[in-house]
Amino acid sequence: MVERTLESAISSDVSPAFDLSMHLLAAGGKRIRPALMILGAMATGECDPERIASLAASAELVHMASLVHDDVVDETRERRGAVTAAGSFGNKISVLGGDYLLSRAFQLLAIHATPDIMRSLSTTTVQMTEGEMLQAWAEGDLEVWQANYWRIIRDKTAGFMGACCECGALLVGAEPSVRERLCEYGVQLGLAFQITDDVLDLVGDRALTGKQTGMDLMDGKFTLPVLLALRDWDGAGLLREMLAKGRMSRSEAREAADMVIRCGAVDAARLAALGCAEKAIEQLSEVGRSQYKDALIALAGFVISREG
Amino acid sequence: MVERTLESAISSDVSPAFDLSMHLLAAGGKRIRPALMILGAMATGECDPERIASLAASAELVHMASLVHDDVVDETRERRGAVTAAGSFGNKISVLGGDYLLSRAFQLLAIHATPDIMRSLSTTTVQMTEGEMLQAWAEGDLEVWQANYWRIIRDKTAGFMGACCECGALLVGAEPSVRERLCEYGVQLGLAFQITDDVLDLVGDRALTGKQTGMDLMDGKFTLPVLLALRDWDGAGLLREMLAKGRMSRSEAREAADMVIRCGAVDAARLAALGCAEKAIEQLSEVGRSQYKDALIALAGFVISREG
Repeated sequence: MVERTLESAISSDVSPAFDLSMHLLAAGGKRIRPALMILGAMATGECDPERIASLAASAELVHMASLVHDDVVDETRERRGAVTAAGSFGNKISVLGGDYLLSRAFQLLAIHATPDIMRSLSTTTVQMTEGEMLQAWAEGDLEVWQANYWRIIRDKTAGFMGACCECGALLVGAEPSVRERLCEYGVQLGLAFQITDDVLDLVGDRALTGKQTGMDLMDGKFTLPVLLALRDWDGAGLLREMLAKGRMSRSEAREAADMVIRCGAVDAARLAALGCAEKAIEQLSEVGRSQYKDALIALAGFVISREG
Repeated sequence: MVERTLESAISSDVSPAFDLSMHLLAAGGKRIRPALMILGAMATGECDPERIASLAASAELVHMASLVHDDVVDETRERRGAVTAAGSFGNKISVLGGDYLLSRAFQLLAIHATPDIMRSLSTTTVQMTEGEMLQAWAEGDLEVWQANYWRIIRDKTAGFMGACCECGALLVGAEPSVRERLCEYGVQLGLAFQITDDVLDLVGDRALTGKQTGMDLMDGKFTLPVLLALRDWDGAGLLREMLAKGRMSRSEAREAADMVIRCGAVDAARLAALGCAEKAIEQLSEVGRSQYKDALIALAGFVISREG
């Protein structure tokens, strides 16, 4: 139902708007945000399937819009093993296309959201853009990353996943205490998800991630494994020197990634992701047993064990 | 009140988000969209000043977001005589900054809008992005411009101005017939506004417009004065040949602009704008006399006589 809603929501008689949207839809994705919203609703109450599908689709549209703009901003030409919208349609159509998708998301919300869902999702969208801007601003600056890593991943990724869970609970009128813990489940799951993303950037198999490794280092993004290596590894002197330059060449990034792996910092980051996933699952203690709760638990395991 | 609301709505502890927003706010602007919403409300009923100021500010934020992205897309480095956000902050921060402003707009709407206002503004935002994409797609292609000029300016400019008026009327609970005619007032005013913009691109005084002349021709945007020259001027052969090449150099654009002026097509376009402004004013016949109605009438005169 979410896929069908997405397809009808993005339809346009303006061909670049339609073509770009269909390109994105066809590229697929894990659809984690819709899953979180639907499972959050179904684990804590009952709701109209069509309505939750529309709200879940709007969350995915917000995510798709941010992906399109990320790919423009980072000049990413390949994602999930396929050419990105920015690569296929150019930056001009992609900037406008991201705006189109974000507007479509709010149009869907305007029809289906309650005022509190509207407030939750619009607020988390603001935070997402703030997180992206903070990240762009931090690029190549190790000190800014050290001071802001957790804020960046919370704002750009985790807060939105928390809001998806929260909105599911809001839709079914769950108790405030259940709703708040479900939101925190989503936040912790999001942190685990993003840390795993950051780990996969260093050690992932390109055939599975669809991305080259070491891109973050080349873009001047200094993520948790790197920050842990600097903090905990006695031999981090050379690594620190390399990071001080801001951006790295492909071969330097490979060398730095090897150091971060060998010193054990990638394992330490994986452990941090596991800790977040466990915290996520703990939040579900008050939720009654159901296949939906089981799916939420399984999802926390999935986000840290995935290879792409 | 709108300026104060804008200032507090865009505040952020993420410095690039705050700096970019303040840069835009300080650059000023005509604030026509807030004026349309406020006058539309006050001419047809009564409303809470704080609420209408918040909604009016959200309309301006949507507009500001689209300006920022336009300037990225068109590589505009100067606007209203000042450096654009894209020029000051670069494309990366500007793409994300536009998203930030659009999200802030929807966050304000989530607090202050009724469901029907939310639907109206989100739908018009979708159309605006479709109009922008159609325009980007049409660039350099004369036939596409000939077939789509009115659709482009309606979608990218006029529909939004119509929605601002409509939302003002919705807020005060005006009769549906009054609301619809007020919306059409805004649409016609928007068409007059955009045609005048297109005329000023050819004949404007850079000291007043803050923009170089002939930019549209250089960008492959073939607007009403040019289209009228082709349709009605017997000697348009050379102009047609120049346009067939898609984009023009600065000197070619100047030459083409001179032809369009000399053959009378700029005057014809101004006449078309005047016709739209008159149609706009006609829509107000059922609105009772007030200083707000007078201001709406004056605004229709202003948009076609302005020089910048």
